[in-house]
Amino acid sequence: MPKEETLGITIKKEQEFSEWYNEVVIKSELAEHSVIRGFMIIKPRGYAIWEAIQGYFDKRIKKIGVKNAYFPLLIPEELFKREAEHAKGFAPELAWVMDQEQREKYALRPTSETVMYDSYSRWIRSWRDLPLKLNQWCNVLRWEVKQTKLFLRTREFLWQEGHCVYETEEECEKETLLYLKEYKKLCEEMLAIPVLEGKKTEKERFAGAKTTYAIEALMPDGKALQMGTSHNLGQNFARAFDIKFIGKDEKKYYPWQDSWGISTRLIGALVMMHSDDKGLVLPPKVAPTQLVIVPIYNNESKEIVLKKANELENKLNNYEIILDDRDEYKPGWKYNEWELKGIPLRIEIGPKDIANNQVVLVRRDNNKKEFVKVAQLDKKIKDALEDMQNALFNKAKKFLDSNVSKAKDWNEFVKQIKNKKLVRAFFCGNTKCEDDIKEKTDGATSRLIPFEQPKNIGKCVKCGNDGKFIVIFGKAY
Amino acid sequence: MPKEETLGITIKKEQEFSEWYNEVVIKSELAEHSVIRGFMIIKPRGYAIWEAIQGYFDKRIKKIGVKNAYFPLLIPEELFKREAEHAKGFAPELAWVMDQEQREKYALRPTSETVMYDSYSRWIRSWRDLPLKLNQWCNVLRWEVKQTKLFLRTREFLWQEGHCVYETEEECEKETLLYLKEYKKLCEEMLAIPVLEGKKTEKERFAGAKTTYAIEALMPDGKALQMGTSHNLGQNFARAFDIKFIGKDEKKYYPWQDSWGISTRLIGALVMMHSDDKGLVLPPKVAPTQLVIVPIYNNESKEIVLKKANELENKLNNYEIILDDRDEYKPGWKYNEWELKGIPLRIEIGPKDIANNQVVLVRRDNNKKEFVKVAQLDKKIKDALEDMQNALFNKAKKFLDSNVSKAKDWNEFVKQIKNKKLVRAFFCGNTKCEDDIKEKTDGATSRLIPFEQPKNIGKCVKCGNDGKFIVIFGKAY
Repeated sequence: MPKEETLGITIKKEQEFSEWYNEVVIKSELAEHSVIRGFMIIKPRGYAIWEAIQGYFDKRIKKIGVKNAYFPLLIPEELFKREAEHAKGFAPELAWVMDQEQREKYALRPTSETVMYDSYSRWIRSWRDLPLKLNQWCNVLRWEVKQTKLFLRTREFLWQEGHCVYETEEECEKETLLYLKEYKKLCEEMLAIPVLEGKKTEKERFAGAKTTYAIEALMPDGKALQMGTSHNLGQNFARAFDIKFIGKDEKKYYPWQDSWGISTRLIGALVMMHSDDKGLVLPPKVAPTQLVIVPIYNNESKEIVLKKANELENKLNNYEIILDDRDEYKPGWKYNEWELKGIPLRIEIGPKDIANNQVVLVRRDNNKKEFVKVAQLDKKIKDALEDMQNALFNKAKKFLDSNVSKAKDWNEFVKQIKNKKLVRAFFCGNTKCEDDIKEKTDGATSRLIPFEQPKNIGKCVKCGNDGKFIVIFGKAY
Repeated sequence: MPKEETLGITIKKEQEFSEWYNEVVIKSELAEHSVIRGFMIIKPRGYAIWEAIQGYFDKRIKKIGVKNAYFPLLIPEELFKREAEHAKGFAPELAWVMDQEQREKYALRPTSETVMYDSYSRWIRSWRDLPLKLNQWCNVLRWEVKQTKLFLRTREFLWQEGHCVYETEEECEKETLLYLKEYKKLCEEMLAIPVLEGKKTEKERFAGAKTTYAIEALMPDGKALQMGTSHNLGQNFARAFDIKFIGKDEKKYYPWQDSWGISTRLIGALVMMHSDDKGLVLPPKVAPTQLVIVPIYNNESKEIVLKKANELENKLNNYEIILDDRDEYKPGWKYNEWELKGIPLRIEIGPKDIANNQVVLVRRDNNKKEFVKVAQLDKKIKDALEDMQNALFNKAKKFLDSNVSKAKDWNEFVKQIKNKKLVRAFFCGNTKCEDDIKEKTDGATSRLIPFEQPKNIGKCVKCGNDGKFIVIFGKAY
């Protein structure tokens, strides 16, 4: 149990965003740094959020016909190198294990395209075997050299990776976008985080993909965070791994593939987006515990208050609920602790409340207090959770909407990037020009090519050559 | 889709058990060997069984107050070596990753005591922090040099590992046995595999534990299979990792710890125990699909039969169900396929059945066919699934009971081991004597010291010195 004086958050979100984030993650007990450089420990409160995300998303993809499987952690060097662009893209981040006996070198998976598609090449024979839709929930390793940040950039993280194979290009493209839609739904409806969606530029494309689609959220410090990606791999890996099927016309074809993933990074996004100077704020739908009951009593009233609190706990058993009946802490101390830890609703109950057949219901996000008759409690809790979920989303949506600006020329562009905006501008699509933008803005990168594009495309905001599309630029995690 | 002639099982369980096992695992599409030596791919049908086990067991341990978390895959060499016996025991099975930049060596976790308890030493301060009960579902790596066998011995496997810390020795011992009970319940009630329970001898004890408890099942080839272990670690790791807490009396103490695990090996046990010469047989409670409907029709009756089959599928939507309406296969072919893949119940429905308002219900384990009126189908399915679950358990129980024998002297002992029995005999407890038994019987090892022991212990079956207890010996996986 931490000491009272160090329990709360000591850093202001507005002032030192990055340090505030770290303090919230650690003090609300979601995760902490491991003794192993660049690794994290996901503590029970953090892991429970991951379980909530898994529970929701696993059901969704199973409805689409995706099945879970498990492929080896280790990937032989030879397999990893088969798709040239993929191999090159991931090379700097690989960690290797040496099999002394076999004298073979294995990469720890940074993603599983290569090890899975080697199997696919043996499993797929005919159009009858398609579509093949597999997913795995697992750990991956990317040996980052940049400074790590809990949940956002660590050398090991947990994720799901879906890997599907289709007969036709059309089906592949359609489903690649379907998984992106699922990610958007998860972020907006469960995590209460509004996202922008679109395509990545050449430069930001997944190594080995034909097209990468992504959803991006804007964090309160003005940095974009990639929340999920869905890659149309075209036939690139099919060719590299010799995956072929016999079509209905008895001819051989390469199939079309996609892969798509989300990770424990989403937990980091949740913390940044909704939390405040008192600690963690969680949208009720992903909060592992929705309710805490804090009984208020003295020696005289203890028995009757605890009895009533216990009754309430039993009555509200359709929620995940904590009754904090620890005798050694005062109610105010308990309020602070559960606010820090992000329980959406608090019920306070004391002798006067019992006499009036009521409780006090307090919302975590806006601190709103309400006297509620016990008979109406169930309905009030339901409403409060729903309202809180919506309020968090609406607040985040308003923030996002008011922070996407347009830049007509380079001066405007630089200014808006400095003002921590996501900036919409015409862009030529050239990777060299994109590098140039990054250098001259101290780090702004292309985030997305939005799906909706104007009819007339102007000149590139940087080089002045013909523009290809509107692109959203910004600094990013 | 495999070709028709190679679809079925070609090897008899009675004749070539080991090859039969491999064929069932591969042809029922549970798993296959990876191109990486010693690794396996868990295919969707196999993974779904693991999900069923997880779904059941995760709920059980959460009720006991265990919470899930996630610790790093990699363990620094220095941490791994802190508990001497543990380090020595696992040394031969470790795979290592080298961090070129930090010049540090990390072991891929074969089990997570060391990496978790390093954190525990920082987390635990006071008696208020106890008990601490954590679990993780993850992959582990043990670089086996023996020949690998799908699910039973592979270099990577999936498991859960529970790691709890307690104030008192009594509480620790009680809970160590509680998790063993939970494993027994899982095996017997879900997997329909009866187990023996007891303590391990010194020689078979987990490296670093004070006492190892285990459950063991007897496979049809006469070999024992360890199904789960629960280790009372005493204060060994607490001392090695300097985990201390301040007790209610304000004094410092080392706490008491246990760790306990089950793995994807249980899927292998399921296959060996219940399957037959037609393929996989799964107890209904862990079968990912309980029912398959096979419509029987010709061109004329096709429409009406498929319509009725669809109605049935919708009506039975409280079960996981497959309607096999593929036009390109004949019913007989479909029967074989779903028998191979272990669907517990089959419903056959043709025009005559429809006319009589009935279906044919066929049980996978005993091939029993029954005409069932549609109005009674729901109840009959429920009964059939329950009966099948019980029948599989009872059959396995009978087999186990009739294959545990007693040996009064060494000659009897050798003979019974040869006859593929588990043998109960007095034993001195001496590790050298145990090595001797193993050598002279071509591999028999001590499996368990049963909890129930006779009052009078005779001389050791091997060395003739004073016996310490009855031990069950046998050959094992």
